[in-house]
Amino acid sequence: MPRLTPGYRDARRRQIIDAARRCFTRSGFQATSMQDIFTESGLSAGAVYGYFTSKEALVAAIIEEVVAEITAGFDDVLNNEALPPLPEVLERLFTALDKQDTRREFAALVVQVWAEAVRNPILGATLAGSYRTMREKFVRLVKRFQQEGQLDPAAKPGDVARVLTTFGPAFLFQQALLDGVGAKAFSRGVHPLLLAPQTVGSRRGDE
Amino acid sequence: MPRLTPGYRDARRRQIIDAARRCFTRSGFQATSMQDIFTESGLSAGAVYGYFTSKEALVAAIIEEVVAEITAGFDDVLNNEALPPLPEVLERLFTALDKQDTRREFAALVVQVWAEAVRNPILGATLAGSYRTMREKFVRLVKRFQQEGQLDPAAKPGDVARVLTTFGPAFLFQQALLDGVGAKAFSRGVHPLLLAPQTVGSRRGDE
Repeated sequence: MPRLTPGYRDARRRQIIDAARRCFTRSGFQATSMQDIFTESGLSAGAVYGYFTSKEALVAAIIEEVVAEITAGFDDVLNNEALPPLPEVLERLFTALDKQDTRREFAALVVQVWAEAVRNPILGATLAGSYRTMREKFVRLVKRFQQEGQLDPAAKPGDVARVLTTFGPAFLFQQALLDGVGAKAFSRGVHPLLLAPQTVGSRRGDE
Repeated sequence: MPRLTPGYRDARRRQIIDAARRCFTRSGFQATSMQDIFTESGLSAGAVYGYFTSKEALVAAIIEEVVAEITAGFDDVLNNEALPPLPEVLERLFTALDKQDTRREFAALVVQVWAEAVRNPILGATLAGSYRTMREKFVRLVKRFQQEGQLDPAAKPGDVARVLTTFGPAFLFQQALLDGVGAKAFSRGVHPLLLAPQTVGSRRGDE
């Protein structure tokens, strides 16, 4: 039997995961069988089982990968040392989550992950943990915006951070189920809300 | 055989739907069997089939009901003749979507409906249609806010409306998968963003 190089194994693993992602996006985690994945990947049962011993192992690997892709998108933006205005931070976040040509497929898979997480307590706890980590990063960001006078210093950072954490999911929601627009078009709708002229007259001490 | 009154039939139908909603919330649409629903409702197969001829019919009825509950929540707020400030409109919207004691269960079921909709083209089109209707209502609202000077008149109403349409899903997302807070706590985080002091200095002509 020929020895398999690590590069070969990585490529084969990638091939299986990509096929499984397509199946799960199309049919959901529950309705996809290992047979579907063999067919989609063009590989034999033996070849696939050499990498993933069960559907559960494959589901777990893909969910982990999708969560990591989303978390990385947040991190890229939130770990930035420079502090641009809030609308720009959000636009960068949407851009990091925007998969361009495959945006609807990616967003659809993310929605499947959410559905799996509300049913499965272990996955639910993992996903909630990731979102809590993101929220903590937003808390630090909100505090910096408050220090710089970009946000009301009287607001509780945790309250504002919670809402900001849902902006990424809201963006992906509309990609999966509503208009399916990209980061630029979505940001064009966010900016006027954050720049609402009502704020000028309705806040004391601004006049 | 005794004749069944319409009131009896309605109550029995309600009993089946409530049992099915609990099953779907717990296990998802795909993994729930009719047997699960017989057990959960305490009714026989014959009794259930007298109301719903298949699982698909029951799924369709429940999805229709959930979408109607959400749409009604939006309508209550958006059809209002009076025009309160935007943060108040949003707080009312969150309140209409907030199921109080059963909020996590309701939000979890909504997330299942989303997942079903991204996989099923007919349901997807129906759900997208409901959201487009909501977006059109937001478009009219945004135009009124612009006329009143509460929102930048240069913004495209469709762009802003798209984002506002995702605020309800964002609220339900955090109820299902993140903090699970109610309308008041969520609104406390939304208001400072819409009232951001940055707007004062960064918009031309305000100074």
